[in-house]
Amino acid sequence: MQNVKGTYDYYGREQALRRKIQETLREKFELYDFDEMVSTELTDLAFLTSKYAGGDEIVKEMYQLTDQRKRRLGLRYDLTIPFAKVMALNPSIELPFKRYEMGKVFRDGPVKRGRLREFLQCDVDVVGVKGPEAEVELMQLAVDVFRTLELDIQLKWNNRRFLGEMLAAIGVQGADSLSIMLTLDKLAKIGIDSVKAELAEKGLAGGVIASILELIELEEPTLEALIDKYDLQYSAGAQEVVEVRDILRKLGLESVCVFDPFLSRGLSFYTGTVYEIFDASNGFASSLGGGGRYDAIIGQLIGRDDTEYAAVGLSFGMESIMALLEERYAAAAKASVNVVLIPVSVTAAELLQTAADLRASGIRVKLDSSGRKLKNILASVANSGIRYALLVGEAEWKAGLVRLKDMEERVEREMSVDEAIYILEKASG
Amino acid sequence: MQNVKGTYDYYGREQALRRKIQETLREKFELYDFDEMVSTELTDLAFLTSKYAGGDEIVKEMYQLTDQRKRRLGLRYDLTIPFAKVMALNPSIELPFKRYEMGKVFRDGPVKRGRLREFLQCDVDVVGVKGPEAEVELMQLAVDVFRTLELDIQLKWNNRRFLGEMLAAIGVQGADSLSIMLTLDKLAKIGIDSVKAELAEKGLAGGVIASILELIELEEPTLEALIDKYDLQYSAGAQEVVEVRDILRKLGLESVCVFDPFLSRGLSFYTGTVYEIFDASNGFASSLGGGGRYDAIIGQLIGRDDTEYAAVGLSFGMESIMALLEERYAAAAKASVNVVLIPVSVTAAELLQTAADLRASGIRVKLDSSGRKLKNILASVANSGIRYALLVGEAEWKAGLVRLKDMEERVEREMSVDEAIYILEKASG
Repeated sequence: MQNVKGTYDYYGREQALRRKIQETLREKFELYDFDEMVSTELTDLAFLTSKYAGGDEIVKEMYQLTDQRKRRLGLRYDLTIPFAKVMALNPSIELPFKRYEMGKVFRDGPVKRGRLREFLQCDVDVVGVKGPEAEVELMQLAVDVFRTLELDIQLKWNNRRFLGEMLAAIGVQGADSLSIMLTLDKLAKIGIDSVKAELAEKGLAGGVIASILELIELEEPTLEALIDKYDLQYSAGAQEVVEVRDILRKLGLESVCVFDPFLSRGLSFYTGTVYEIFDASNGFASSLGGGGRYDAIIGQLIGRDDTEYAAVGLSFGMESIMALLEERYAAAAKASVNVVLIPVSVTAAELLQTAADLRASGIRVKLDSSGRKLKNILASVANSGIRYALLVGEAEWKAGLVRLKDMEERVEREMSVDEAIYILEKASG
Repeated sequence: MQNVKGTYDYYGREQALRRKIQETLREKFELYDFDEMVSTELTDLAFLTSKYAGGDEIVKEMYQLTDQRKRRLGLRYDLTIPFAKVMALNPSIELPFKRYEMGKVFRDGPVKRGRLREFLQCDVDVVGVKGPEAEVELMQLAVDVFRTLELDIQLKWNNRRFLGEMLAAIGVQGADSLSIMLTLDKLAKIGIDSVKAELAEKGLAGGVIASILELIELEEPTLEALIDKYDLQYSAGAQEVVEVRDILRKLGLESVCVFDPFLSRGLSFYTGTVYEIFDASNGFASSLGGGGRYDAIIGQLIGRDDTEYAAVGLSFGMESIMALLEERYAAAAKASVNVVLIPVSVTAAELLQTAADLRASGIRVKLDSSGRKLKNILASVANSGIRYALLVGEAEWKAGLVRLKDMEERVEREMSVDEAIYILEKASG
């Protein structure tokens, strides 16, 4: 017996840490006025494989199944397509609409570090805001989340439209543009020589290749330098970039949110700003999250090319964040037991009654009714790092008394249940 | 386009209420010393269909799929089997082990009220405690949860072994026992005449049927009366029932946790105490939760008949609880926005800077950058029940001032951002 490859069970300290991260995300998401959504995991196959939903690559990695009535279904492979479905099925939802969802998604693809078959996605999306305040608000949120998690990040950002305008100015044909963007996107990852090799295989005119190389070999070009070089002062994409950059500058976020003219992200549906979040120490190569503006896809999925659903999203990479935080916080994250209750000479009823009294005051109680020797039980308590043990003996219990043992201070004292509750409440903060 | 039958998307107020219920469950689960587990939804088909995992009925309702490598998989249909899997794969887990899990499960069965194809289960289970304190602790937990949710419940309980002993005393052959239990279990639901009809179809001896009818026609028999009648003073099952009853009595839980000698629950794997939770007003017929002791199944699933994994579980029925609470709490449960931020003559940068200042103090801010007329925006704010609007104008903003409008008191005043934060923090409690 073993788990399905690329799927994992979580429990104990690991899950406690995963929960802590999710609660941090949830708290911030709600502070930024996103409401929770839980969408279905089972989805109609025809919808998932429709023209705009993800393309061949995603269909290949989608788990497909057939129900008893021979209906063809698929498991969701992201949270964006189900979100578009909800927008389509509920036309009365008022815009702008801001939702977050944290849920499992499934991909039947190659398994490697940070890429699983069944994994948690944590997405925020806003629909119905065209202006740059939507993408900058998400950048603020990202910065806020990672500051709270005490992870140093760099958020790289760019604009697809602007990158397209530069490529057009160079002489790239529209049809080649997306493919070239996806190659340029790998610059930081595979290096300039590999990018050159990939470009050489695309059958581009020699002059175009030379111009692209000239662009990517510029040393940290400023935004203004690029706009001047390609004469894009009046282009829509360039204006969007300048707008976002100016807001970031005013908000003092320019050093965390760094413009990167070659970023475009792997997916084809982005229409404007894109961003991706990295560990600032560069010790961890995987992306910690990413997103961007996709103004066309919801309308297309809904089947209404005439209505634009301006949309911006940001996805947090739970598995990458976990990998970074795991060692640092594992010890601290354990949901903490306040006291171990040990029956010395009482029955289950007295034990459970005492437990009920403590729990009514919000004290997390572990029962030890193992019947082991007291010495051995106390040794386990000490080992597990739990500070207090409460001994319940029959004679004392009848007089309303219990014996509280402080494992840290190595003292023990008889007292009333109320006094024990008072001490335990104070200790659990 | 439509949702797969029996699957639902949740958002807005409905999801806020679902979240509230889940947080109540989580808080109580942890108070009772359960730690969270998140098990895989994709599972090896051979394991799910193994002899002890659920039988033909469940296999028929299981969603099956095949991955790219032609491995046969199934979607989990409960949380107990995946839990047994985790126990099997991690033999170093220390007993007793208490875990809770809240997660989606999938059943390709008939859809009706409270029975969906994709639904949330909320389970607690403890492995490694043989004594009755385990089941009574779960009953305490159930009573505590529903008191906190302000739902009046009746928890009916019984013991499979005891019921088996009564049937054996009547002369029921071991092979017929389970089938008769499942019929008796329906007594409250289908009534005595239908139970008679079902019994008549089982090909039992006439004397046996008469004795069963005599049993079920007893008027609210006490536990002692049953033990006397069938001479079970020294039987293991009867002793278990007496023990649990005595503890419940001492804990003052006897009026909420009511002994019902015919309860046996639909599933075959219970070995001792079983219980099921109902709305005390009887206005709602569906079970709100249930569970019991199943000492054999984990060992069997793991393939170790020699090792007994004493286990007791309790499952909360999220969909039933929601149905009961929906009307009562929908209005109250909405995650509350503290203030709507409205730009009067400022750019996105000033707006987002002000939002950042407020959010840094934990104030949930909604931005309205719709560009609509101020009058219309304020009418929306008033309609949505949000108390405060914060107007940000350029000249004031430069002087560090904003205009806070209290929609309830119908007053508005210019003040520093700090003062606005102070007022909003106080108002959001």
